[in-house]
Amino acid sequence: MTSVPEPSAELLQRAGAVRLAAVDLGQTDDHQRAQALQSMADALGERAEAIVAANREDLERSAAEGLAPALMARLKLDAQKLAGAIDGVRKVAGLPDPLGQRQLHRELDDGLRLERVSVPLGVVGVIFEARPDALMQIASLAIRSGNGALLKGGREARCTNEAVMGALKAGLASSSVSPDALALLTTRQESLALLRLDGLVDLIIPRGSNELVRFIQDNTRIPVLGHADGICHLYVDQQADLAKAVRVALDSKTQYPAACNAIETLLIHRSIAADFLAAALPVFAGAGVRLRGDAASVALGIPELADEDDWRTEYLDLILAVKLVDDLTEATDHIRRYGSRHTEVILTEDHATADRFLAAVDSAGVYHNCSSRFADGFRYGFGAEVGISTQTLPPRGPVGLEGLVTYRYRLRGDGHIAADYSAGSRRFTHEDLPL
Amino acid sequence: MTSVPEPSAELLQRAGAVRLAAVDLGQTDDHQRAQALQSMADALGERAEAIVAANREDLERSAAEGLAPALMARLKLDAQKLAGAIDGVRKVAGLPDPLGQRQLHRELDDGLRLERVSVPLGVVGVIFEARPDALMQIASLAIRSGNGALLKGGREARCTNEAVMGALKAGLASSSVSPDALALLTTRQESLALLRLDGLVDLIIPRGSNELVRFIQDNTRIPVLGHADGICHLYVDQQADLAKAVRVALDSKTQYPAACNAIETLLIHRSIAADFLAAALPVFAGAGVRLRGDAASVALGIPELADEDDWRTEYLDLILAVKLVDDLTEATDHIRRYGSRHTEVILTEDHATADRFLAAVDSAGVYHNCSSRFADGFRYGFGAEVGISTQTLPPRGPVGLEGLVTYRYRLRGDGHIAADYSAGSRRFTHEDLPL
Repeated sequence: MTSVPEPSAELLQRAGAVRLAAVDLGQTDDHQRAQALQSMADALGERAEAIVAANREDLERSAAEGLAPALMARLKLDAQKLAGAIDGVRKVAGLPDPLGQRQLHRELDDGLRLERVSVPLGVVGVIFEARPDALMQIASLAIRSGNGALLKGGREARCTNEAVMGALKAGLASSSVSPDALALLTTRQESLALLRLDGLVDLIIPRGSNELVRFIQDNTRIPVLGHADGICHLYVDQQADLAKAVRVALDSKTQYPAACNAIETLLIHRSIAADFLAAALPVFAGAGVRLRGDAASVALGIPELADEDDWRTEYLDLILAVKLVDDLTEATDHIRRYGSRHTEVILTEDHATADRFLAAVDSAGVYHNCSSRFADGFRYGFGAEVGISTQTLPPRGPVGLEGLVTYRYRLRGDGHIAADYSAGSRRFTHEDLPL
Repeated sequence: MTSVPEPSAELLQRAGAVRLAAVDLGQTDDHQRAQALQSMADALGERAEAIVAANREDLERSAAEGLAPALMARLKLDAQKLAGAIDGVRKVAGLPDPLGQRQLHRELDDGLRLERVSVPLGVVGVIFEARPDALMQIASLAIRSGNGALLKGGREARCTNEAVMGALKAGLASSSVSPDALALLTTRQESLALLRLDGLVDLIIPRGSNELVRFIQDNTRIPVLGHADGICHLYVDQQADLAKAVRVALDSKTQYPAACNAIETLLIHRSIAADFLAAALPVFAGAGVRLRGDAASVALGIPELADEDDWRTEYLDLILAVKLVDDLTEATDHIRRYGSRHTEVILTEDHATADRFLAAVDSAGVYHNCSSRFADGFRYGFGAEVGISTQTLPPRGPVGLEGLVTYRYRLRGDGHIAADYSAGSRRFTHEDLPL
């Protein structure tokens, strides 16, 4: 942790102010939080011109500094993109309240009632790269779920982020949520020190490159919601329907190759490989996908030879590694060895084989006869996506608003004491009540 | 992490074997796992004499080495305690299956169905101090929930632990679960290196002193289920019923003072303090509780003066810190500042005040008019307790078998691809189906 500095007194003070505001925010009701988001959206709309102008300033400076075209595109926030982001804030306002959900309701004994109720985490720390729309999205998800947020955006977007944050706070100022619930961190030193705010920050959400996520995971004790690699596999079983397999494999690779849920490795059962590749090679070539295969698949027409590194590489590009396997076990062993536990797919018409795959592969998503690209909070119907987690413990896979809440046990009695139960003068009934 | 050694090749090989066995174990059904536990219990019964003899050896050696009486008592495993532990294994066999629970079931579109299903974590690492019964308990919870386990017991109990583990593995050998699913680590080097087995161990469960837990939390990147401190508070509001308050406060402190859910600090509303203390002081004195108070409470008869350290101390003993507060806000501020987010209690007949306390205090358990000692997995009706967590993220508070499972998303389609939805030729229906 040598490269992570101690938090400055000023950062501690700012984080403390967010935490304090979050205590009140956590006690607001659904209506108050939904209203606060509408108010944030209103303020963004009122300041749209200034925000777009601030963004132009960022774009000009970044162009002069030679920012890569892909990053320039992400940085750009024109009137249309801003209107879309404002619409997104209003959509988050309309999501069902994630707080106050009763998950357990049990009478422990006469007059002694236990509830488990969803509550906010407290304060989330968000570190995102170039995209300024992420600021609006995450800030609205945080407020909707009753959490304060410390947000650190990319240096390239600093004028835009300041203009956006100004609007968000102005919106909160005319709501029942304190503007102190949100704070923008601006220096790199602050974003590093954020990683050390154990006790003041409950969850860190990184939005950016694999390198950023890995650095954060390796340099903080605060839980991190996200994933570094997305090395997803698609296995074409010997009982696969060829046309279906080609179609799903193509979509899984090409529908958006830079996404974490695009496949990076294709595993093919040896007995179907010649037929599958005969059908698939022209289709992949037509889509501009470069294939790298093991020796056996090169013998069947794959143009480039893959090496060990290919099995571990998330290309995020129109490149796909290919390997032939003898059976389902070799496929699942390969996935266990090289996968990142994100999403894996089997293509087969044999449902027993599909069930074995779905039981044996321990990734957050295990799919049968459909594209890996469905691994997404919106496609799952969550209404929002806070991140996709490849950790073992929940929350796992695409995470909606539930990733920003935890729970608390409430127990209400009338003078009940434990000694009565250990003495046997009273007994627990443990009767579940309606939720 | 300087003091934590790299895992040896032998440890990596052993952990790899547990992981491999856990893959198969994760695919067993409820009946197979319940049977495996019965078989473990049978084998423990058959080898009872040898286990008790091994324990006598540990006791004699430890007595010669001058082990403290309290630890000697924990180490002791006589025929009666062993029978109780075996009964415990059978009880875990009878718990409802935590695996295969469908938590979400949704049609994303015609023929495209999403499920979220509970699955095992994989491998848990358990580090426990003197008590050999913890080995039987945790091993049975792990197998019941489909997890492999690497277990490291205390040096004092090494003969007992080896005899117990021999029996557990013999039991598994005559079941459909591989004995490789359990492994006993015996050296201190191994238990330290366990903390570095990221990727092979999914969760670490420490069972022992606060110091042990804190050391583990500070020296591993693997998630840890447990808690270091349990600094629980009880607040006597001005609207408290005095008799009820005295009774609940006494139980919360004395029913088992060494437990993490015993209270360490009593906060009293200034306006009721004289009356409350007049009633409580003789009762606490009668129970042998030493009180240490702030200046205002000393003026009302508390014998010792507390200092700043007292608010941060988990006595785990018949000592209680006392502080007078002006109002609910001062009480909740004190709890926020000094508490460990375990369990806090308010005593009041004013339900609005109680509701404010339950909303404002963000501890795993917030109680009204009942003893803090109810914070326990068995008392909550979970049938088992894996640990009590004071972290913010779930699982939180007393954790039953659900702490040993995670979930996986399964998506089944018939050639569905994402491009159809982004092109608008198909639309998501997101219709929830019966669980």
